[in-house]
Amino acid sequence: MGRMDVEGLRQAARACLSPSVFAFLDDAAGEGITARRNETVFRERSLVPRVGRDVSDVDTTTTVLSGRVTAPIGIAPLPRLAAVHEEAERGLATAAASRGVVFCAATNSSVALEDLAVENARQWFQLYAHPDGAVTADLVARAGSAGYEAVVLTVDRPVPGAKKSEARKSTSPADVPNLARYGQDAVRHRYDPAFTYTDLEALCRASPLPVVVKGVLHADDARLAVDHGAAAVWVSNHGGRQLDHVVASLEALEEITGAVGDRVEVYLDGGVRRGLDVLVALALGADTVFVGRPAAYALAVDGARGVEALLGRLVVELEQAMALTGADDVRRIDRSMVR
Amino acid sequence: MGRMDVEGLRQAARACLSPSVFAFLDDAAGEGITARRNETVFRERSLVPRVGRDVSDVDTTTTVLSGRVTAPIGIAPLPRLAAVHEEAERGLATAAASRGVVFCAATNSSVALEDLAVENARQWFQLYAHPDGAVTADLVARAGSAGYEAVVLTVDRPVPGAKKSEARKSTSPADVPNLARYGQDAVRHRYDPAFTYTDLEALCRASPLPVVVKGVLHADDARLAVDHGAAAVWVSNHGGRQLDHVVASLEALEEITGAVGDRVEVYLDGGVRRGLDVLVALALGADTVFVGRPAAYALAVDGARGVEALLGRLVVELEQAMALTGADDVRRIDRSMVR
Amino acid sequence: MGRMDVEGLRQAARACLSPSVFAFLDDAAGEGITARRNETVFRERSLVPRVGRDVSDVDTTTTVLSGRVTAPIGIAPLPRLAAVHEEAERGLATAAASRGVVFCAATNSSVALEDLAVENARQWFQLYAHPDGAVTADLVARAGSAGYEAVVLTVDRPVPGAKKSEARKSTSPADVPNLARYGQDAVRHRYDPAFTYTDLEALCRASPLPVVVKGVLHADDARLAVDHGAAAVWVSNHGGRQLDHVVASLEALEEITGAVGDRVEVYLDGGVRRGLDVLVALALGADTVFVGRPAAYALAVDGARGVEALLGRLVVELEQAMALTGADDVRRIDRSMVR
Amino acid sequence: MGRMDVEGLRQAARACLSPSVFAFLDDAAGEGITARRNETVFRERSLVPRVGRDVSDVDTTTTVLSGRVTAPIGIAPLPRLAAVHEEAERGLATAAASRGVVFCAATNSSVALEDLAVENARQWFQLYAHPDGAVTADLVARAGSAGYEAVVLTVDRPVPGAKKSEARKSTSPADVPNLARYGQDAVRHRYDPAFTYTDLEALCRASPLPVVVKGVLHADDARLAVDHGAAAVWVSNHGGRQLDHVVASLEALEEITGAVGDRVEVYLDGGVRRGLDVLVALALGADTVFVGRPAAYALAVDGARGVEALLGRLVVELEQAMALTGADDVRRIDRSMVR
Repeated sequence: MGRMDVEGLRQAARACLSPSVFAFLDDAAGEGITARRNETVFRERSLVPRVGRDVSDVDTTTTVLSGRVTAPIGIAPLPRLAAVHEEAERGLATAAASRGVVFCAATNSSVALEDLAVENARQWFQLYAHPDGAVTADLVARAGSAGYEAVVLTVDRPVPGAKKSEARKSTSPADVPNLARYGQDAVRHRYDPAFTYTDLEALCRASPLPVVVKGVLHADDARLAVDHGAAAVWVSNHGGRQLDHVVASLEALEEITGAVGDRVEVYLDGGVRRGLDVLVALALGADTVFVGRPAAYALAVDGARGVEALLGRLVVELEQAMALTGADDVRRIDRSMVR
Repeated sequence: MGRMDVEGLRQAARACLSPSVFAFLDDAAGEGITARRNETVFRERSLVPRVGRDVSDVDTTTTVLSGRVTAPIGIAPLPRLAAVHEEAERGLATAAASRGVVFCAATNSSVALEDLAVENARQWFQLYAHPDGAVTADLVARAGSAGYEAVVLTVDRPVPGAKKSEARKSTSPADVPNLARYGQDAVRHRYDPAFTYTDLEALCRASPLPVVVKGVLHADDARLAVDHGAAAVWVSNHGGRQLDHVVASLEALEEITGAVGDRVEVYLDGGVRRGLDVLVALALGADTVFVGRPAAYALAVDGARGVEALLGRLVVELEQAMALTGADDVRRIDRSMVR
Repeated sequence: MGRMDVEGLRQAARACLSPSVFAFLDDAAGEGITARRNETVFRERSLVPRVGRDVSDVDTTTTVLSGRVTAPIGIAPLPRLAAVHEEAERGLATAAASRGVVFCAATNSSVALEDLAVENARQWFQLYAHPDGAVTADLVARAGSAGYEAVVLTVDRPVPGAKKSEARKSTSPADVPNLARYGQDAVRHRYDPAFTYTDLEALCRASPLPVVVKGVLHADDARLAVDHGAAAVWVSNHGGRQLDHVVASLEALEEITGAVGDRVEVYLDGGVRRGLDVLVALALGADTVFVGRPAAYALAVDGARGVEALLGRLVVELEQAMALTGADDVRRIDRSMVR
Repeated sequence: MGRMDVEGLRQAARACLSPSVFAFLDDAAGEGITARRNETVFRERSLVPRVGRDVSDVDTTTTVLSGRVTAPIGIAPLPRLAAVHEEAERGLATAAASRGVVFCAATNSSVALEDLAVENARQWFQLYAHPDGAVTADLVARAGSAGYEAVVLTVDRPVPGAKKSEARKSTSPADVPNLARYGQDAVRHRYDPAFTYTDLEALCRASPLPVVVKGVLHADDARLAVDHGAAAVWVSNHGGRQLDHVVASLEALEEITGAVGDRVEVYLDGGVRRGLDVLVALALGADTVFVGRPAAYALAVDGARGVEALLGRLVVELEQAMALTGADDVRRIDRSMVR
């Protein structure tokens, strides 16, 4: 399994999951243009390697939000994985901890955030602004108490997206253990379409944890998010699951790193499938990238072991790509290496 | 039926119409390059959504020619629909009125303009400059008396187009009730190849109704039309039915809104098939868009009910697209949201 | 037959000719990239029609080299048509004269130039610079005596091209009646690889007829040709029969009309298949265009009548395209009409 | 065989080699994007021929590193050809000498450099910087003693590439006769991942032979290589065998000739398959090009005779392309001839 690439994992996941669960993982908005484009734009880029550099010791370690990680590759928030593998989100948390990379737990996890916490691991908690501000505040507080290092606020889902599986969105408290304690109403109405930068500023002020703003594609929004307190900006189109025909994450990246890259860290998810893709995103200014669907496929196939193998493969590919482009350190991956 | 997209409606219309009637609806000039391009250029555009905005109350209402409409989506003039559905153009008029949007009746309607008037509805009347100026003047006068709010002068048909069904063009007065009273000759020779801006200026002066000039693709013509009295400019290539290889409407839009958008309203038809397309056209400066063939397909399938369902679907799609791009009002759809 | 488009004529010609004769007509250098590209570049252009113009009387007449023609569409030099139709090049000459357009006879015609002359017709004679200058001079003199109005010097064939049928190139005097009187050697060695602009200048000075230089693709060569006496420049890549991967004629046109269009007339052949193509070439600065292969196909199918029908169809298509783009005169076709 | 183009040779080689040997020759990194792109970018270029020039005597001879060659087409270093043909690299050396062009012997040859030396031939020796500097120095010295005129230092292989056959890389001294005398360890660890420009400068100073730096794709590296003593720069992506998604050689060429073309000679390999490709590379600034895989295919099919035929064909094609673009000398191939 360690030798499977992401497409191989996807096929294997399709084979071992029920069609409806696989469809939920693989779903995208509209005709899936944006979901596919997330991947293809990486392939439209060419590399211009550097030579004459000592690459005898290639080092992928770096820092995110002041903490060390073994590689600039984290696991993006994924919802409702209980149906995918018995380990559910625990598989992701364990694998990320074992590999020394960031794991971002989702509000819509099948497992409550307290039950996903791994000691000494780099863990973040993703949340949506809840219509009831008290719920949002409580979630942030719980994440802090459980040892999470940051909250990742997803801002690109003010209303449901146009994906096929949207209709199957669960509103049963049992399916959203993170919110169950707040009652059925809090589960049913858990997205706030009225959330603005004013609310973000209040949230950032009140939060004991740094707030990463996820779902930014416009440079002006990156600036506004930072102006209102964001500790980092996460470029994402929600995996192409919200609105079709939206720009690919990588297409939005450069303008955003140009706008705020000197003030905060910039992350990216969407379309990262190979070590080469990580290098391309870093060359265009990302500080780290996150993988979503690939981690879910790997979990489906072999639980935490599958996810560890996936992370291992991506790191090895990144190391080779760095050596062959002349970068022994992630800080040496520069803009001129990509066309 | 309310869940059918436009391609679904097209297939359903094909199934329920005779081949020759469907061919007439679906016809295009030459190889159909322009007709197809009208649609594909929308898909070549990418959206850059905005976040952090209150979209709890998305409002698609706007104004056209100083009057309120529930959405910036009207019905373009369509000829000879008696063969398509027993309700003929009445189905379009009823549906538009019930949805609160503009209906533009065609000179070549199967039903006379007087018989299409719906009280308190937003209705416009499309006409061609007639070789006999008295006929043109009388048509304008009749439209005014019947309660139409504007005349839409089609200027891109000085001679017959190169479409296959051109040969079947009817010259029987019974088929053109709007012109029947002027005699067979007035029906047979009903397009004036010699019409110029001087004639436009005279028409605008004489007309009790505002004159919208339809069929403009060149920025200089947009300027000339406004200079000679046009109340609005309608960007159109006649659905790709006149001359193949002409630019798509959307390709011409931006230059034209740049040229005259600060002086008059600019409309567009050609290729609009989804709520997303409406948003794209508005982002590039259109004040409202019109749908032609989709309305004919919907009429074929289910009469006025079909057209209402189509309009309803487009509005819902537009609302979702607006919410997910951060625009709670059509005026907030801006140029930076589209690449 | 009058209703066949060029592709239809090509298929009909294929059906009525022996495979080897059709292959000779249809041949191209290398992989045929340039031959195909000649046609496809026309389709990559979009038209931007003008409106509000009197097009009740569309006039395609124009002048070339100070003489009147009914349309800016001539017949390019074509070699060895005896195998194609019993009328051979006489069919082209007759058709062109009857339609009032230019016919350009080829040195490698199956019929001697004296036998192709049609009274009061617009006829030019194409020649290659012969290694023996006396032969070249005599050809020019004969063309003048026979009533030809210009010589068209082909300069893009200093050595044989890379087309498949090159091997079958005839060196029998009987096959080249224009050169037969100069002896077998003059037929065998009839292309001068050492011809330069100095030779062109001498030729232009000595020639009683204006010299059109054919086979120019580089703006510097257009300037040099005019500086050395050319009366007009003919943009051509020899129908893609000399060197594959050369730019399409239309791609080279604009730079050349920019370079010399204010000093001499500029012509084009290569890829013209429809009236629309004529309009595009004229919008980009050509004064007239020539058709090669299409005329040979039409000749194969129906002799002079076939060629007349082809020319008639092209003129009708041009008229319609002019009316629908707002040009009642070829001088009113301007650059802004094409993108 | 002389009439086979490169694709024909490839198919013939596939037919006469064992699948594993053919796979080794044909192998590429990753999905083979770069290997294919090396070829396709040549086809994306268009030629703009010149006319009115004396091309009666087209001359392909030129100089490389101050020595005369009959054409700007050399043979790139190829490893381990014993399995391809019994003549192995001797076939390449003989053919190049007989045709009067440069042959570059590879360190990983099946035949030791001393046994490949052909008297009075233009021969270069390719080497990798060895982790043991004494080995590198000895290889350079041996090349000088054996009559080689230059060393070609490959710098784009600091670590193994991502090609499928990498696993089959031989570490047996018998397979690398050039290194066998230095012991098994020197064979096993024969690539230095720590080699830098400082080492290059030392090597250039110590070498009695000029040092060509091969594997440069970035203009800054071209400048650094020359600054540190390189006698020439060889643009190459290792035939797309190291890292997929790297730019094609031709795409990198122009920036590099712009950066250092006035100080040193610039060579290119990768994708050259036809005489036309040679002309394109020269127009973009290359002083000579090298062919790799095509020579191996030709060797497989017919030994030295096959390679001679291939070189002969390329020269003839180049001559024809030069004549038809108006260049009687390689120095007259200029930038304006290619788009």
